[in-house]
Amino acid sequence: MNPQHSVGIVTPQVARFDEALSLTCGRELPYFELVYETYGALNERHSNAVLICHALSGHHHAAGYHSAEDKKPGWWDECIGPGKAIDTNRFFVVCLNNLGGCHGSTGPSSINPATGKPWGPDFPPIRTRDWVHSQARLADYLGIACWAAVIGGSLGGMQAMRWSLEYPERIRHCIVIAAALKLSAQNLAFNEVARQAIESDPNFAEGDYQAKNTVPARGLALARMIGHITYLSDDAMANKFGRDLRSGSLSKGEAANAEFQVQSYLRHQGSQFSGSFDANTYILMTRALDYFDLALEYDNDPVVAFSHARCSFLVISFSTDWRFSPERSREIVNALLAADRPVTYAEIEANEGHDAFLMPIPRYLDVFRAYMLRVGDDS
Amino acid sequence: MNPQHSVGIVTPQVARFDEALSLTCGRELPYFELVYETYGALNERHSNAVLICHALSGHHHAAGYHSAEDKKPGWWDECIGPGKAIDTNRFFVVCLNNLGGCHGSTGPSSINPATGKPWGPDFPPIRTRDWVHSQARLADYLGIACWAAVIGGSLGGMQAMRWSLEYPERIRHCIVIAAALKLSAQNLAFNEVARQAIESDPNFAEGDYQAKNTVPARGLALARMIGHITYLSDDAMANKFGRDLRSGSLSKGEAANAEFQVQSYLRHQGSQFSGSFDANTYILMTRALDYFDLALEYDNDPVVAFSHARCSFLVISFSTDWRFSPERSREIVNALLAADRPVTYAEIEANEGHDAFLMPIPRYLDVFRAYMLRVGDDS
Repeated sequence: MNPQHSVGIVTPQVARFDEALSLTCGRELPYFELVYETYGALNERHSNAVLICHALSGHHHAAGYHSAEDKKPGWWDECIGPGKAIDTNRFFVVCLNNLGGCHGSTGPSSINPATGKPWGPDFPPIRTRDWVHSQARLADYLGIACWAAVIGGSLGGMQAMRWSLEYPERIRHCIVIAAALKLSAQNLAFNEVARQAIESDPNFAEGDYQAKNTVPARGLALARMIGHITYLSDDAMANKFGRDLRSGSLSKGEAANAEFQVQSYLRHQGSQFSGSFDANTYILMTRALDYFDLALEYDNDPVVAFSHARCSFLVISFSTDWRFSPERSREIVNALLAADRPVTYAEIEANEGHDAFLMPIPRYLDVFRAYMLRVGDDS
Repeated sequence: MNPQHSVGIVTPQVARFDEALSLTCGRELPYFELVYETYGALNERHSNAVLICHALSGHHHAAGYHSAEDKKPGWWDECIGPGKAIDTNRFFVVCLNNLGGCHGSTGPSSINPATGKPWGPDFPPIRTRDWVHSQARLADYLGIACWAAVIGGSLGGMQAMRWSLEYPERIRHCIVIAAALKLSAQNLAFNEVARQAIESDPNFAEGDYQAKNTVPARGLALARMIGHITYLSDDAMANKFGRDLRSGSLSKGEAANAEFQVQSYLRHQGSQFSGSFDANTYILMTRALDYFDLALEYDNDPVVAFSHARCSFLVISFSTDWRFSPERSREIVNALLAADRPVTYAEIEANEGHDAFLMPIPRYLDVFRAYMLRVGDDS
């Protein structure tokens, strides 16, 4: 643990909701639990609360450490902490594990009350809107009538946008980083191959692996590798690995060994992930991503959609992000402008591809911090 | 069969080579066979022969039909035929299935003379240079002292470049389409995931699936899907599918069914491929691609490399190709210019991504045809 500029040691909490939640698919969850963390203190007027929405494989542990021995802080520790862009001296920051997740919130690994066994593949499909509705329950639970800001990168940015339409009176600022109004056919294709990789693993057992006491580790590792390539720019990969051979010399035997550094890196990433993430959750979350389409119920017109929003927006994109490129962010900005919504847009020069939103890129952090000062002014 | 502007019905031929072939890996093939097709007639001076080198999953059947019932012509029929860019009224065109292939040339499915069983995973690794050496044997066999042109797209373009260095006196023109001097880390990463998908399939049996009478069909299908995404531009996918739902409505059941058109398209492509291609060949060919590095033995300097060439070059790239982008072609062109080699470069505006090199794009065919008229002038 590195306590400097850190929120320090944090403890996850669990909120249980006993009123049923109606889902977009038509089914309902009779009850559910959400695991979450908070950083900073809620002010007297409850006006300084900020919600962090996580991306595809994220969770509630966004900042700080779980123990003094912890080596790695939360996934967005670069942005959340005392004096950081999301300044915990000023804001009460809430981050949860989304419904359907595998880090403590109700999801496919939880017990299905109807059967007494894990839901597994029978867990209902979740849409971004469902996440937003469940997050509103958490806001009620915490006594937060209106978020100072809802903030997210990638799939998290999509949740933030959905918040601006579902609960226009409950959000003052919406911060959308490296996101898009909907996925492109290429985005859909990568998600499909990732799911196919999981479903092709015989240990997947049509999603019933938990009951069979197996784990589709190879499929999940493959899915992660595919995702990982799309998070990095070609340049970032070149800088990280180039074409360096792992052993420094050409293997004559053409063994199944990784020969280039990038190969062993990918294998390492894949196997780490498959040991810590649930396959049904991965499928559920990629589907939520596939089906996200902000304007679908608004005549397929994002201008019509955003005309329902009441908050101010900050939109940020990164030059080498080819998963959700700056062009996709400009579509968001153009729709917001056409809908007469206040919007600030920053396109950050960064070499890191989509992953840039997690990185300490000075210009990015400066823009982010400057905007958050404005958020403070309203409260 | 559509006989218009076609070379008509063609019959593959087999050449057997009984002298051992030394390979880059240090091993040798005691003998080998190459299956090939020819279109047009060899002239008296044997000066009008053109070699077509195929790409990753290509083969010897580049033009014409195998029977009157054939619905689909060879893979490059758009470019090869009477009056086409590679005009069979003027050129004697040769296309072979590369060593290590699975369409009739000696490869992993062939019998290993040492064991009397299929080579399978024991087939020696092949490098682009080995292909060029085996193609030179085929040239000897056909009585071709010097190719009027060696032509290839993608991995085929890499073979064409290697020809210009290995046999500078045996090639007058080198045509390199949608290729690169070497793979980027991102290219390597995609190939690695494709191989991992195959090797993760339990039916792969460490490459010994033929002996076990199985086929790693799901792994091979996944590998093809991954490759396929990289062959198409985001735009091309958007035009082809957009986000259209296959059934026209959102599936409530979240079944394992393909919900978006792009998903069913990919699954179809994957399953077609896995029924017709050999997994060990796919691994062998992606590794040849990974290890291709034109300048590696020339002080890592492509200018030094190309200073050994004696032929003229045509280099073509496509604007939306993100597998081997125009920037990679310009690296080839810049090295050729610095090495004082005659080079023509065309960057074609095309929406089709890497696949554009197989498509009838008017500007592309015009440039290609115009250059080939020059090739005729030398003979």
